[in-house]
Amino acid sequence: MTRNKRAAQATPESLHQIFTIPEAPDSTLGRIEAEISQNLNGFLAKSIVATDKPLTEIEKDFAQSQIPEQPQYVSDHTHHLLDKLISQSVHTSSPSFIGHMTSALPYFLLPLTKLMTGLNQNLVKIETSKAFTPLERQVLGMLHRLVYNEPDDFYQEFMHSAGHSLGAFCSGGTVANITALWVARNNLLKADGEFKGVAQQGLHKALQHYGYQGVAIVVSERGHYSLKKAADILGIGRESVISVATDEHNRIDIEQLQRTCAELESQKIKVMCLVGVAGTTETGNVDPLTEMAAIAEQYNCHFHVDAAWGGATLLSNKYRDVLKGIELADSVTIDAHKQMYVPMGAGLVVFKNPAAVASIEHHAEYILRKGSKDLGSHTLEGSRPGMAMMVYASLHIISRPGYELLINQSIEKAKYFAQLIDQDSDFELISEPELCLLTYRYAPQAVQSFLQTANAQQSLDINSLLDKLTKFIQKRQREDGKSFVSRTRIEVAKYSGRKTLVFRVVLANPLTTEQILKDVLAEQKQIAASSLQYLPQIIDTIRAT
Amino acid sequence: MTRNKRAAQATPESLHQIFTIPEAPDSTLGRIEAEISQNLNGFLAKSIVATDKPLTEIEKDFAQSQIPEQPQYVSDHTHHLLDKLISQSVHTSSPSFIGHMTSALPYFLLPLTKLMTGLNQNLVKIETSKAFTPLERQVLGMLHRLVYNEPDDFYQEFMHSAGHSLGAFCSGGTVANITALWVARNNLLKADGEFKGVAQQGLHKALQHYGYQGVAIVVSERGHYSLKKAADILGIGRESVISVATDEHNRIDIEQLQRTCAELESQKIKVMCLVGVAGTTETGNVDPLTEMAAIAEQYNCHFHVDAAWGGATLLSNKYRDVLKGIELADSVTIDAHKQMYVPMGAGLVVFKNPAAVASIEHHAEYILRKGSKDLGSHTLEGSRPGMAMMVYASLHIISRPGYELLINQSIEKAKYFAQLIDQDSDFELISEPELCLLTYRYAPQAVQSFLQTANAQQSLDINSLLDKLTKFIQKRQREDGKSFVSRTRIEVAKYSGRKTLVFRVVLANPLTTEQILKDVLAEQKQIAASSLQYLPQIIDTIRAT
Repeated sequence: MTRNKRAAQATPESLHQIFTIPEAPDSTLGRIEAEISQNLNGFLAKSIVATDKPLTEIEKDFAQSQIPEQPQYVSDHTHHLLDKLISQSVHTSSPSFIGHMTSALPYFLLPLTKLMTGLNQNLVKIETSKAFTPLERQVLGMLHRLVYNEPDDFYQEFMHSAGHSLGAFCSGGTVANITALWVARNNLLKADGEFKGVAQQGLHKALQHYGYQGVAIVVSERGHYSLKKAADILGIGRESVISVATDEHNRIDIEQLQRTCAELESQKIKVMCLVGVAGTTETGNVDPLTEMAAIAEQYNCHFHVDAAWGGATLLSNKYRDVLKGIELADSVTIDAHKQMYVPMGAGLVVFKNPAAVASIEHHAEYILRKGSKDLGSHTLEGSRPGMAMMVYASLHIISRPGYELLINQSIEKAKYFAQLIDQDSDFELISEPELCLLTYRYAPQAVQSFLQTANAQQSLDINSLLDKLTKFIQKRQREDGKSFVSRTRIEVAKYSGRKTLVFRVVLANPLTTEQILKDVLAEQKQIAASSLQYLPQIIDTIRAT
Repeated sequence: MTRNKRAAQATPESLHQIFTIPEAPDSTLGRIEAEISQNLNGFLAKSIVATDKPLTEIEKDFAQSQIPEQPQYVSDHTHHLLDKLISQSVHTSSPSFIGHMTSALPYFLLPLTKLMTGLNQNLVKIETSKAFTPLERQVLGMLHRLVYNEPDDFYQEFMHSAGHSLGAFCSGGTVANITALWVARNNLLKADGEFKGVAQQGLHKALQHYGYQGVAIVVSERGHYSLKKAADILGIGRESVISVATDEHNRIDIEQLQRTCAELESQKIKVMCLVGVAGTTETGNVDPLTEMAAIAEQYNCHFHVDAAWGGATLLSNKYRDVLKGIELADSVTIDAHKQMYVPMGAGLVVFKNPAAVASIEHHAEYILRKGSKDLGSHTLEGSRPGMAMMVYASLHIISRPGYELLINQSIEKAKYFAQLIDQDSDFELISEPELCLLTYRYAPQAVQSFLQTANAQQSLDINSLLDKLTKFIQKRQREDGKSFVSRTRIEVAKYSGRKTLVFRVVLANPLTTEQILKDVLAEQKQIAASSLQYLPQIIDTIRAT
């Protein structure tokens, strides 16, 4: 600490210093940086406290609403960040943090992030990004090719063409999905005769012009919540997202999809877009994309595939067929910050037709002039950082076969974990892994057996109690801080489609070992055994019947 | 280079390495990182080539559409990035790069970026961000207080309340503006009787229910292009952004604004939102916000202030009154990556009413459960990085008085530059700096004098030629690589509102010296003198009259 120093003061000299004089290597921030560089996991394991502090307690450290009138020395502030922020953050790259889609990162990305920040390019326009613009276009081209595999001359013609775009890079899958649906909406309700198009004249006049009662987005009940958000933002309304039931593998029921589309048509509601899910957020399953594409063609509507999670599977020659049919989509969302192991803030959408984005193009006087190659003329966001560089570097350093190994390992680890669960009579596997996600719950053999023959009321009673137990175990395990699985509620076919609380596991961290998976189960058993409330209640309920 | 090494191979071991073994300090990437840490500007000045390479040439280095089948060593790839990308990027932090809003960064942000990346938090939900959630809420609270200055107990009640939100953090001003207008639209067209609200049922039914012919966003002709983009996305249509003329200081004409609103009302078009501009992108002027607020109240509509650029001026006690009336706005956009000197990717919007965002709230089963404090339940984006930490650290280390010094310096530097231009008979100042932006052009005294007495046709002829000269000078100066001003086209009152091409200057880099400003003008004179085409043509045209 620097109590013996004079207090910091804001003077022209001190400010000039922070812009010109770097932190010394032996300063507090310098030492931390060196530690991160040498042993990130060691630093995180040491700095993040393992036990849970209630959020309301943490909030007390972030309660001041006045902007400080007194500057802080960098070293003092660094200590403050360590004490109050880092210690209470989440060790997302921990090999036993297997509950969400955020995982470990390759080391080389840390210095590259610093390089990116130092360069501070703004990708909205060439004047503030120059080579970063063709780089981003190349990254989009590579991902486009991964999905659509068009011939060389296609990419030669379109990848760097001012009038075309193979996709849009953005901060994440939600913006990517909104962008895709925005394009779909504007292409559907395009200019026609006197009507100048929805982009110019809005949705109200567009529907009047085309004589539709409404437009709809059709997706399985496992569709990501960002689709409803998109429908809200785009003025279509959340009710226009029509949910279709899934089969026992969490994939859209094609027959019901057919019926839904026919019904909408009969009501003069135009199907604007079918959305296929390639890797549902909750279970990692993939919709039958080829069949969906055929229906989209039949109804002459946009076919979008939300492959935010699953898209990277295309990098695996062994497993890419799981996403068969994706090449028939008009647009595909892929999050590089998920299974491509890039830091948070890297999503993208690719478009089959390089002219599709014309429907969302816009210009301004001082930038994005017509005919320019400024990326900002067809993105939802304006100013944006050069995150595409992280994807570019990862694609080159890891390469496709490297990604294939990572993807294959993840899927096979999930299959191994599913086996562990299956073999353990205290657990019930709820969804098998198709990619590297699975769901399960704690339910002793006796309880599972009882449920097989229980009547509707009995089943409901026991499942409600099991829900409480699942929640209890998940929360306690998170609070204990050794490992983390998430929880969600999904319809389970064998329980008559009842929405059931389950553990959700994502096995994307390359550093997660088989031993860790065994430990996760062992810990859950222990917590269950310690549950003086729920487990005895379940047993009593069964006995009483 | 590593030609003598064996080629890189993707093996489970090599992949395990990139996740566990850091770059050695003496590796290529390690050396570059050290160089950036020690002397960022030196590194950039040395690494970025000064002379312009045509974009089509650069594109040749980014032409490959296949994802590599062969991994690259980190060191080899680093050399590649230096050769092809860094060398052809833009030195945005150069003190003579005074054409855009991207500038130098304080040094402490570089190691902090690395820390942020290493932590890889996802702020969509507490489970992947923990203390980062209260931190972001505090940052929003601080900026809210900067704008609205509510009493302490207001912030105690709302800053960390699950059911409220003082704002939304996002990747930039465009998303912030879209978010504000989304909130405005949903609050205007809210649920009412049988009608479930625009969020649920869409714009078409909303307008039918409320009996509006349309809704409008009213803004001066200097409004940022993101507003039209927002109108398109939100389904309102770009035509619904109604432009109001500005006075000779680029501020909205209040009388015309009154007339516009009255006219819209008479057409049964509901004014959804007035947008005040606090720091126009092109000239840095600020609308009369107090008067606008009164009109917004009269028409009972949302009043949004786009202070993406100018918002930080509130940190200066000396100049904050330039934005007087901003505290009357329902929402305010501020970009921290502009005048708050934070890296690209940090925008935000604050809402006067902490309950305003309820109209865009959404939930999902596995996250964002009702009653949670997950930030993702009221943001446009989903997964997001912990950029709020950069703002937090800067507010503490620089402090308000430090920001005041920076802001004051920028404004005073712009006034000095305006003086230089005014005193030099070869230049014509087009817009005076109100904040740290100004516009001007090269126009020798004789030409300026001629224009004062010229008739309409003569004025048009000469101004058209001057436009060409301005473009020529701006492009040549950029290509020569010593310094950079941008160019734009704005209506100039003294030339009967003709859209005139001008140099645009943004003086936010604390390292820009007075000498650099003199050099910029000297260089422009030199380029003008070398223009064998435009200058002689202008002189001939004048002589011929």
